Amino acid sequence: MSSLVRDRLGGFAFGADYNPEQWPESVWDDDMALMKSAGVTMVSVGIFGWAAVEATPGSYDFGWVDRVMDRLAANGIGACLATMTASPPPWLAHRHPETLPRRADGTVLSPGSRQHFCPSGPVYREHAARLVEAIATRYADHPALAMWHINNEYGCHVPECFCDVSAAAFRSWLADRYGDVDALNDAWSTTFWSQRYADLAEVLPPRAAPTFLNPAQVLDYKRFSSDALLECFLMEKEILRRATPTVPVTTNFVGAWHRIDVTSWAPHLDVVSYDSYPDPNEPDTVIQAAFMYDRMRALHGKPWLLLEQAPSAVNWRAHNAPKAVGEMRLWSYQAVARGADAIMYFQWRQSRGGAERFHSAMVPHGGPETRAYAETAALGAELGRLGPVLGSTVDAPVALVSDWSSGWALQGNALPSAGLVQEETDFAHYRSLWKAGVAVDVVSPSVDLSRYRLVVVPNLYAVDLDVAERLVEYVRAGGHLVMSFFSGIVDSAERVHLGGYPGPFRELLGLGVDEFWPLPPGGTVALDSGGAGTHWSEWITPAGADVLDRFADGELAGMPAITRHAFGDGVATYLGTRPDEATMADVVGRALTAAGVTPVLEGVPDGVEVVERGGNGRWLFLLNHNKTAVTVPLPADAVDVLTGDVLGAEVELAGRGVVVARLS
Amino acid sequence: MSSLVRDRLGGFAFGADYNPEQWPESVWDDDMALMKSAGVTMVSVGIFGWAAVEATPGSYDFGWVDRVMDRLAANGIGACLATMTASPPPWLAHRHPETLPRRADGTVLSPGSRQHFCPSGPVYREHAARLVEAIATRYADHPALAMWHINNEYGCHVPECFCDVSAAAFRSWLADRYGDVDALNDAWSTTFWSQRYADLAEVLPPRAAPTFLNPAQVLDYKRFSSDALLECFLMEKEILRRATPTVPVTTNFVGAWHRIDVTSWAPHLDVVSYDSYPDPNEPDTVIQAAFMYDRMRALHGKPWLLLEQAPSAVNWRAHNAPKAVGEMRLWSYQAVARGADAIMYFQWRQSRGGAERFHSAMVPHGGPETRAYAETAALGAELGRLGPVLGSTVDAPVALVSDWSSGWALQGNALPSAGLVQEETDFAHYRSLWKAGVAVDVVSPSVDLSRYRLVVVPNLYAVDLDVAERLVEYVRAGGHLVMSFFSGIVDSAERVHLGGYPGPFRELLGLGVDEFWPLPPGGTVALDSGGAGTHWSEWITPAGADVLDRFADGELAGMPAITRHAFGDGVATYLGTRPDEATMADVVGRALTAAGVTPVLEGVPDGVEVVERGGNGRWLFLLNHNKTAVTVPLPADAVDVLTGDVLGAEVELAGRGVVVARLS
Amino acid sequence: MSSLVRDRLGGFAFGADYNPEQWPESVWDDDMALMKSAGVTMVSVGIFGWAAVEATPGSYDFGWVDRVMDRLAANGIGACLATMTASPPPWLAHRHPETLPRRADGTVLSPGSRQHFCPSGPVYREHAARLVEAIATRYADHPALAMWHINNEYGCHVPECFCDVSAAAFRSWLADRYGDVDALNDAWSTTFWSQRYADLAEVLPPRAAPTFLNPAQVLDYKRFSSDALLECFLMEKEILRRATPTVPVTTNFVGAWHRIDVTSWAPHLDVVSYDSYPDPNEPDTVIQAAFMYDRMRALHGKPWLLLEQAPSAVNWRAHNAPKAVGEMRLWSYQAVARGADAIMYFQWRQSRGGAERFHSAMVPHGGPETRAYAETAALGAELGRLGPVLGSTVDAPVALVSDWSSGWALQGNALPSAGLVQEETDFAHYRSLWKAGVAVDVVSPSVDLSRYRLVVVPNLYAVDLDVAERLVEYVRAGGHLVMSFFSGIVDSAERVHLGGYPGPFRELLGLGVDEFWPLPPGGTVALDSGGAGTHWSEWITPAGADVLDRFADGELAGMPAITRHAFGDGVATYLGTRPDEATMADVVGRALTAAGVTPVLEGVPDGVEVVERGGNGRWLFLLNHNKTAVTVPLPADAVDVLTGDVLGAEVELAGRGVVVARLS
Repeated sequence: MSSLVRDRLGGFAFGADYNPEQWPESVWDDDMALMKSAGVTMVSVGIFGWAAVEATPGSYDFGWVDRVMDRLAANGIGACLATMTASPPPWLAHRHPETLPRRADGTVLSPGSRQHFCPSGPVYREHAARLVEAIATRYADHPALAMWHINNEYGCHVPECFCDVSAAAFRSWLADRYGDVDALNDAWSTTFWSQRYADLAEVLPPRAAPTFLNPAQVLDYKRFSSDALLECFLMEKEILRRATPTVPVTTNFVGAWHRIDVTSWAPHLDVVSYDSYPDPNEPDTVIQAAFMYDRMRALHGKPWLLLEQAPSAVNWRAHNAPKAVGEMRLWSYQAVARGADAIMYFQWRQSRGGAERFHSAMVPHGGPETRAYAETAALGAELGRLGPVLGSTVDAPVALVSDWSSGWALQGNALPSAGLVQEETDFAHYRSLWKAGVAVDVVSPSVDLSRYRLVVVPNLYAVDLDVAERLVEYVRAGGHLVMSFFSGIVDSAERVHLGGYPGPFRELLGLGVDEFWPLPPGGTVALDSGGAGTHWSEWITPAGADVLDRFADGELAGMPAITRHAFGDGVATYLGTRPDEATMADVVGRALTAAGVTPVLEGVPDGVEVVERGGNGRWLFLLNHNKTAVTVPLPADAVDVLTGDVLGAEVELAGRGVVVARLS
Repeated sequence: MSSLVRDRLGGFAFGADYNPEQWPESVWDDDMALMKSAGVTMVSVGIFGWAAVEATPGSYDFGWVDRVMDRLAANGIGACLATMTASPPPWLAHRHPETLPRRADGTVLSPGSRQHFCPSGPVYREHAARLVEAIATRYADHPALAMWHINNEYGCHVPECFCDVSAAAFRSWLADRYGDVDALNDAWSTTFWSQRYADLAEVLPPRAAPTFLNPAQVLDYKRFSSDALLECFLMEKEILRRATPTVPVTTNFVGAWHRIDVTSWAPHLDVVSYDSYPDPNEPDTVIQAAFMYDRMRALHGKPWLLLEQAPSAVNWRAHNAPKAVGEMRLWSYQAVARGADAIMYFQWRQSRGGAERFHSAMVPHGGPETRAYAETAALGAELGRLGPVLGSTVDAPVALVSDWSSGWALQGNALPSAGLVQEETDFAHYRSLWKAGVAVDVVSPSVDLSRYRLVVVPNLYAVDLDVAERLVEYVRAGGHLVMSFFSGIVDSAERVHLGGYPGPFRELLGLGVDEFWPLPPGGTVALDSGGAGTHWSEWITPAGADVLDRFADGELAGMPAITRHAFGDGVATYLGTRPDEATMADVVGRALTAAGVTPVLEGVPDGVEVVERGGNGRWLFLLNHNKTAVTVPLPADAVDVLTGDVLGAEVELAGRGVVVARLS
Repeated sequence: MSSLVRDRLGGFAFGADYNPEQWPESVWDDDMALMKSAGVTMVSVGIFGWAAVEATPGSYDFGWVDRVMDRLAANGIGACLATMTASPPPWLAHRHPETLPRRADGTVLSPGSRQHFCPSGPVYREHAARLVEAIATRYADHPALAMWHINNEYGCHVPECFCDVSAAAFRSWLADRYGDVDALNDAWSTTFWSQRYADLAEVLPPRAAPTFLNPAQVLDYKRFSSDALLECFLMEKEILRRATPTVPVTTNFVGAWHRIDVTSWAPHLDVVSYDSYPDPNEPDTVIQAAFMYDRMRALHGKPWLLLEQAPSAVNWRAHNAPKAVGEMRLWSYQAVARGADAIMYFQWRQSRGGAERFHSAMVPHGGPETRAYAETAALGAELGRLGPVLGSTVDAPVALVSDWSSGWALQGNALPSAGLVQEETDFAHYRSLWKAGVAVDVVSPSVDLSRYRLVVVPNLYAVDLDVAERLVEYVRAGGHLVMSFFSGIVDSAERVHLGGYPGPFRELLGLGVDEFWPLPPGGTVALDSGGAGTHWSEWITPAGADVLDRFADGELAGMPAITRHAFGDGVATYLGTRPDEATMADVVGRALTAAGVTPVLEGVPDGVEVVERGGNGRWLFLLNHNKTAVTVPLPADAVDVLTGDVLGAEVELAGRGVVVARLS
């Protein structure tokens, strides 16, 4: 398996966002020296450089960029060069106020922070295109150029704009999607509440309204908004491709916040990049991070780039905890274990002013005599030894299906319960898989599932019949499935699958659901097994399924809660509630056993994460999330990649310690 | 007593909102068959039909309505035909954006949900009038036409509009109310904070402002807004009346949310209708429902129509619990017991799409093979036997006075306590009456009180002197009164009655209040009796009143908390705090005894509600809200109306069971 | 020491806001009689009189003001005459809608309450100037005129306006402050996030934006907004000064809410005035009040005026508790003890209507036969005996440094912790000083500190190097300092002091801080001493400082938490966390001892506040905040000022009792 990063940089991509324009040039030589001593191999340059290169419209001054790129080249450091379009200079809104985005209630979002542009506006696009053209032309052949970094964190702050320009673009998008107004009326069920459109020209964004908006309109607006940003990306990519047909192009995705649909974006990126900011104050933060890494890797089924993480604390939470001693290293290896071929930070030198002056950096306000610099530089040295790992990936026997549209749809109103949040539901299932120590891909329902032994579907609320049929066929052909409640309910236009819940999955699951019985916040329902459920219960009528567990109190006492159905050559387990962690572990554990899925490594203590990368060798990552040392059994003939030592039958991991073992 | 419903339908009105335009016509014949088998006698048609009959402005297509009406007639089902004005088609706002309502902060409320019209706007009114005219003309003589249903749930989502059109209408309303600007200045106390108007043209709605708005302006705006919607109603009613002088006209009121003043609207309806959505998750939900039913019945002192309820769950709460087995039947009988001559659902067939697709219906997504269909159809069959009950009403010896303007005024700011919510206060008093098993009318202070033995006034904050005098005269003439704190404080323009609190009630109550001493949230004050008060305490100086209970701790320890005053030929009890439930029950119980009020039925177990309808016979409703069976004593010679059995000295009620007994 | 109040009124200023225009003139003679019998010597007149004197633009009618002023003069009552500009009449916004202020999201704030003017607008200013000119001219020589009261509670509701007029004024203010756009770009660190301005014309207020705004922009907008209001004040003052060169001018400050910067305003007032509204429901309300009084007194180092307080309850909190029997008197003496030469109320006669009708007054709705009138009149009589105290002040050996800009800056976003609120931090430190019974001045960091024995710096986040150097020099010269965490971090433009935290204080404190470790809400960290810290911890590296206490758990276990450093001839104590109250008392107590600061009076029971005023005699105020009596030791030869009795070696203070003792 080849490695894009190794091919371009000759080793691990290690570095940070580098914003030298914030500092006098006298600092730059220090920067180079410190970068070298920290093992930096690549930096992201110019992400917020627009105003510094185009101080007034159309008048470009690339002098400082030239000098930075030249210095990088001279020091053998690659540049992930930004297209600088993420934050327009103040003059753009001053001259073209219509470029500013609007909230659903009409509020104009002014300059003064970042991302203050309506993605559908032609003026922004023209100015951005002209800038990208200039950059692409100028640096196409620069020796420092390693990669293109388009824009930055698309949709992070303005995932949707509700202005009139966006409204017009939305109508055009709808015309493309539906053809004519009759098809739109049908898809959106507009007969309800007298919403039938006589003409597409009447359609508006889902702006502030008297009460619940049309759910199909809301969902399509999220799709449109993601696509509007994607158009911006593709416009830039096309310019870059023309100038540099072989330089890879990426943009950095942000979190699982359902801003843009990364599953629809990923095919357009040469390499997937991700900004990861786990909260040290969150107890399960490393499991949540693992979930996202398994999603990012699965987008291409290839290594990905951790394009941003914090050396220590961030600045944007209400209470920003630093990473404790050892956590930054441990968590970096976690990303590498799960497929990252780059470890990059935001940012190189901590800003003196501006909104992120309290975000940690490789070189803090206190300079290199600080813990942050020491720990990052030490990691840089270590990563230099991981070159052989580059390009390898993770072979997962389990897929967790998480559908972007369903997650968006569940953000809507007027559902049986407001307590269904896709991220939380996904995580409640993923945690059991993580604790079971098995490798997981987080995938869309439309991928080829046949390679997985077990497929877990936490909540596939919105699903078209053809996609649902793939899941049915997967089980019929011998697959093992675990599916939770409120799946198969509506199609992609939020129209209910008629004939009884859960629509296209009734036969597969061997049951019907007469009615949903959501639990209020904090409400629980006892289970026969001794466990308890939260969030949800429902009136299940088995039609072939065996009952694994029953509700033990409340209005549904004695009725089925968890079932299993042999279907075709496979088996489908169904959960009609969100079981407590132990019950979930039990249900998932039995499904893993039935599917023949085993942990990456047996006999591992609690709190130790084990991941294997392979494809070009076998690399076992042992990550001790405990604060105290533990002993972990090892396969024969393992070699410690960082020390070169041959390892025995077991190895001691220090508190927050890491071992990367090469297996034979 | 005649019955409007029996006269028109020949029996109980039982049915649902029927929105066939959401379905292919192929479904309609199934609908008819299912309706017949469910005992449906009336359906509400076309409530959101505007866009489906007037797809483009002025071009009406009533074909589908004709076919629906004809089918209904052919099947002997009455139509409560809607005027279709509740939700304008998108083309209205597209062509006339000024028809959209605005919030107090200026936010425009866009189409995409429903009720997106400013009620004061001439454009909306013209289009609505033209539509109503067309409907009235076309269906005046249709054999299915049973009743007119004007608009829908007036003010549910947009009780007030703050646009410039509304501002102008407000000024006109003020000119009618006050005559000139001097009278307005006087009523609104505008000398305060330099708010004196030089001209009515300067007056604005109570829009977003730097701090607390003029309370009289705020209160008058609520009155104006209710009247603006009433004008819309009356405009439609006038058109319908001209076309069909004898067809009754109604509109469905929604909840106790103080949106429109139902007490001022009621005289304009031929029959009062109400949409009832008790929350199964609320412990006291049946008592809250009873309160509203007693209010609806008392509006006309006649039977009313339960025009909407859910067969099971709703969709618009954060967590929507279904009605448990038996609850829908039990709660329906509760409405009938308290005067309903119709039991209707929202809606007939559960929508496939749109914002209410998860609202339960008589025919759910799963079709007729569902609990919801089975339970509603069974109820339909039963109600067919209740024909003789129709037209009877409830003879209540107790009145609970709840004033709409006072409730609105308490929603204002800068009061002694933000914790005074009219609904909660009313309910705290009503609950004791409900648990005492006595019949209650919930009335305005302006009704004739002389027919009641006991009058309970939970919180009559805003009261003009002439209205206050009626209460004084009621007691002087021998009436019994229970009044709670913060009554008699201001007049209808929010001007304090000077000379000491509680203004016009000091002599009646035999006391003065030197100062209010509201308790913070969660704060309590002990009482000598061993009970405790919440929400409020105050410095009471008796002037003739006897002290029933005293504050036992805090700054007011030793001072009077609850008093009783013999006044004229009657007695007035006063509560200077909100006592706990047991103390409230004791105070109310003593007042009931003194007034000679007895329960409808003695010896009834807890959780069993007993109501008698009479006038044309005597009908005793026994409603067991417990989940387990209980035994209830019965008067002699009672006959079970549903079974025809002669009942003995006692009857067993199943858990959530109902008996309707005809008394001799 | 002379006394402005005694010189003008011949005795204590005692009275209230007097708004006779709200009442028929028939009430006015009653008012005069009641004022005389209550000992009133001064009233604030006409604060909301604009609409009543200028009913239509330009047409003044001062008749009623004349009659009020004449009556006051005839009764020997002074007038603190308002300029009436606090609340423009409705006609101003009606004719000039651009005078209305806007929120950051663009919402227009309409008339209907008060303070609905953009302070930067020329139209408001012109109308205000014309009115003030008319008032100044008319009453310059009126015998009742004692003082000028400009506007009212500047910035209370609209501290910042974001309209386009304000935007232009902001740009002009920036041009004055920075000269050119390059200096602005440098100060605001605009290279970050591509915010560099090409021209000052591009700068906007910090309006609603996609994410965190530029912190320097936000902070400067607060400064500008305070200055915009100050310009209004100065414009009025200049008119008044011309008409009456010797009549003192004041305006009433409101609370510690960081609306306007009172430290920059104070030099422009002839006498500092303050509106004090402690919440009787707050446990530490008297300590919070003391803090503000010590700030107000320290602004001029002279007596100040309590221009508003409530006789009992206010109306604007969610739950408005009255002052219990004795509290109003006790709290009034607290203000006098801490330097007030006036005790005034809002208001004289409780309004019948308007938003403050439930705010207590000297003459309540119930008239003079009420507790409020009785207690205030009794106080009026007592204060008549305090004439000799007037003009004296408090000699404080301790300074608490509270910087307005730092407090503003901490209201920003994207800080290490959102839990740092200047008021709370200041209070946590002040409380220990209050409980230690020592006298404190609350001062800006720029005052001369050399006169203080101990300087306490709770959180001086934003400090320029020259100001920081004053603190360093203070200690070097022998001063004692207590400083808490997150001080010395940024300069006045929110730019971090580079080279390691806490920037300019590292040498002084003998330590460095590697990283901040804020605690989440409710989070605590144990200390070696047995105490605990909240809010914050940090990684401290001593460089000369001794460690007084260490963190005992968490990631920083074993590292320093509290240190002490001998520096020059002084000592600097540093707290790296917010210790619990006992630990804070211990740290502060040790610093007081080291600095040689002793309590005003030794041997005082808990809950008894002792303050000495001096300069023209010695006056000892003993304030018993307990509900029960206590005995307090006294110096020899003390005389009870209120009774004339010679006091012995100790005196008994009744519950909530007060003794004012003249010392020899």
